[in-house]
Amino acid sequence: MNASLLIRAEMAEIGRRLYERNHICGTEGNLSARLPDGKILITPSGVNKGYLKPGDMIICSADGEKLDDTCEPSSEMKLHTAIYKWRKDVTAICHAHPIYATAYSVAGISLNRPVLPEIVGTLGAIPLAGYASPGSTDLPGTLADLIDRYDAYLLKSHGVLTVGKSLEDAFNKLELVERFARILFIADRMGGAKPLSTKETKRLLREAGRMNIVGELEFPPDDGKGSASAPKKSTSDRAGYRQ
Amino acid sequence: MNASLLIRAEMAEIGRRLYERNHICGTEGNLSARLPDGKILITPSGVNKGYLKPGDMIICSADGEKLDDTCEPSSEMKLHTAIYKWRKDVTAICHAHPIYATAYSVAGISLNRPVLPEIVGTLGAIPLAGYASPGSTDLPGTLADLIDRYDAYLLKSHGVLTVGKSLEDAFNKLELVERFARILFIADRMGGAKPLSTKETKRLLREAGRMNIVGELEFPPDDGKGSASAPKKSTSDRAGYRQ
Amino acid sequence: MNASLLIRAEMAEIGRRLYERNHICGTEGNLSARLPDGKILITPSGVNKGYLKPGDMIICSADGEKLDDTCEPSSEMKLHTAIYKWRKDVTAICHAHPIYATAYSVAGISLNRPVLPEIVGTLGAIPLAGYASPGSTDLPGTLADLIDRYDAYLLKSHGVLTVGKSLEDAFNKLELVERFARILFIADRMGGAKPLSTKETKRLLREAGRMNIVGELEFPPDDGKGSASAPKKSTSDRAGYRQ
Amino acid sequence: MNASLLIRAEMAEIGRRLYERNHICGTEGNLSARLPDGKILITPSGVNKGYLKPGDMIICSADGEKLDDTCEPSSEMKLHTAIYKWRKDVTAICHAHPIYATAYSVAGISLNRPVLPEIVGTLGAIPLAGYASPGSTDLPGTLADLIDRYDAYLLKSHGVLTVGKSLEDAFNKLELVERFARILFIADRMGGAKPLSTKETKRLLREAGRMNIVGELEFPPDDGKGSASAPKKSTSDRAGYRQ
Repeated sequence: MNASLLIRAEMAEIGRRLYERNHICGTEGNLSARLPDGKILITPSGVNKGYLKPGDMIICSADGEKLDDTCEPSSEMKLHTAIYKWRKDVTAICHAHPIYATAYSVAGISLNRPVLPEIVGTLGAIPLAGYASPGSTDLPGTLADLIDRYDAYLLKSHGVLTVGKSLEDAFNKLELVERFARILFIADRMGGAKPLSTKETKRLLREAGRMNIVGELEFPPDDGKGSASAPKKSTSDRAGYRQ
Repeated sequence: MNASLLIRAEMAEIGRRLYERNHICGTEGNLSARLPDGKILITPSGVNKGYLKPGDMIICSADGEKLDDTCEPSSEMKLHTAIYKWRKDVTAICHAHPIYATAYSVAGISLNRPVLPEIVGTLGAIPLAGYASPGSTDLPGTLADLIDRYDAYLLKSHGVLTVGKSLEDAFNKLELVERFARILFIADRMGGAKPLSTKETKRLLREAGRMNIVGELEFPPDDGKGSASAPKKSTSDRAGYRQ
Repeated sequence: MNASLLIRAEMAEIGRRLYERNHICGTEGNLSARLPDGKILITPSGVNKGYLKPGDMIICSADGEKLDDTCEPSSEMKLHTAIYKWRKDVTAICHAHPIYATAYSVAGISLNRPVLPEIVGTLGAIPLAGYASPGSTDLPGTLADLIDRYDAYLLKSHGVLTVGKSLEDAFNKLELVERFARILFIADRMGGAKPLSTKETKRLLREAGRMNIVGELEFPPDDGKGSASAPKKSTSDRAGYRQ
Repeated sequence: MNASLLIRAEMAEIGRRLYERNHICGTEGNLSARLPDGKILITPSGVNKGYLKPGDMIICSADGEKLDDTCEPSSEMKLHTAIYKWRKDVTAICHAHPIYATAYSVAGISLNRPVLPEIVGTLGAIPLAGYASPGSTDLPGTLADLIDRYDAYLLKSHGVLTVGKSLEDAFNKLELVERFARILFIADRMGGAKPLSTKETKRLLREAGRMNIVGELEFPPDDGKGSASAPKKSTSDRAGYRQ
């Protein structure tokens, strides 16, 4: 119960940040966490997630059955439980509608261009999942082909979903996606975001352990170094991508 | 008086959010609520709505006559009283000038494209009401043809108005309109917001009880499923649009 | 000294809003107020105006001579004193660099299009003053031809200046200018901000007591009502432009 | 230890502003300061810089060796130590990813156009440094040719770095760069940012002591005054560029 209490408090805090930093409005968005005992803690439905109190969160079984007698859990419960079953390493999920990333999802454009090293070296890329009605049983299926190798997704016409090892981790990924979307949009308006070289992109993917998505990125026209191996001296001492 | 006190406090809080989240500036915007006894509580005129105290609000009759001896009520009082008479279900009104939605109103473009499920499945669409001078007796008339079937309106060259069952509900609708306007603007710059299918649009309208506006939406070129009935399995268990 | 203390506190508060709402950064911007005894209170030079304390403000004579032994007054002191001599009705001045209005000033485009009734009915329009080096003795001269009939100005390649009857009044005008600039920019990107009719524009100018600038607005191609007198019923009961 | 304590507190405060004003997200960005004894205080790696406490900062030698037993220092430590060795006048460094300036860095466009007097008269211009992997030993080299005559840099595909005489000074420069980037982007969309005259640009550079970069600016097509000396009367009494 005490571990759960800390997670409840973190969920309230992350909800507050989601609203304060304008990634949601109205009753949008939802957060969940998998507790050590396998149960799922999730935000309630129909309320502004910026003003939640720790006691407002709802405990459910791993199958999404409500285990206490409070408010209704998020209508996206089925999406959360499906992800926790697919990805045993995931213990937190964040879904929101940040402006620029949602605009990409509405335009039907994925964020798979290798432009920012802090994206390529962490998330790799952000694919676009197909459309299904929010809250429907079809929605989890749109992630089925992607869930094994990505941690952040554009949901077509709908928003962004990220997974992580803590609520803050999932939230940080969501903000990173939105920042990338916004930078990309602006750079494209001023003449075009320049892609990283194929060599650097592969090096970053390799470091991030994400070479399995290399075929899904939009590479720049071959710059003649596409097949290069790891650079000689500049990476041997990299401390990873943590700034 | 106590019920009224809670509503006064909520009005101050919603005014604060309107300013803090940049939906108003200067002395723009106004809020009102219909009290259980039919009287109307409304924000004062000529002050920044971000710094109101509960005691600053003004009590008026259902006809807009000031009932106490305080500041002047909002110059849009006539608009508020007209709406309360037309719509017996409405108990709160929010009017503000959020940037992107106001830009649409200034460009003379309604927000009636079925693009985001959280718009189609709640507000349906946001029509553009004709222009009349702010504060004038002509202004309520611009809503007369729309008031029976919409909860959110672009006021031509002027801003946004929303109605709801509470001040928070009306405010949430206003933020949702602004978010939609902003996402649509950006998606259109990056290649075009993709409409939902006709089938999905109709399903969402039906669930929202808004099939009466189906003829007012800008549907995409027929995708061959335009006359489809409700989908088979994906909606039977939808928990509605509350996230 | 007590009246001055209240104004010092208001100046600190308005400085905080300028920074928090992103109308300035670094050491940009300045505020001043004319005290009842004719002296001028002004923000210090070289510091972030978002973190001022009441005691940080500097008292100067009407000619801009520093009267106490504190920090240096704003380098724009000469601009402030010139305005106070020209405009006896002005008791506060706000100068900042809000993003969109400054972009208009940098593009060399004035904000004199009659698009938003809350601009036409209050400020009338916002002209573009010529360029002079910030802090120079030439800068006041760029306003000389405009100062008698406007309360808000774009300073070419530099920012925005507003005058008012209180610091909050001048600040509110600055926010209104920035909001207008932003709405206009976005509406122009989505197909073009639609001007108010010539008739409505003249009615609003007349109510605002600003018919003296009617020749300086960019009117729409004549809509056939350009010479119309005041409308019949919609204005007789207008409560002014205070929302 | 007490001087260090004040700097630790300032570092926490500037970190908070970086996040609150949206110049970083996730675990992005880093800050450092050179202490009076030559040691370097730097932000830790892998955490959100908006929530640092004074005790979270890490003390390192001038060569970047960690001197206490806490978290890992920023992965950009090598970049910071190289700068401190090159520039004996610098005592603080700020690195972040503000949206618009990072978009310029991603589009491969420097900010060397003489458009805003508060840029030309302080930073002069903001050059674009070449790309190297974040955290790599190659990264400092990209600044080697620029470090002697600039205080702010776009790092290709990566973000912004500024140096200063205090953390607040470096942070203020970063905000100024971002503001300039944003104003320039918007002005270019509305018809083009107008450059300052060659004469005024040179006067501002001269006052800022930055005539050594005059050859690196993008001057407007010669306006006939390109070789003019300092203006006669408008600058003799300028109080500098501090507002």
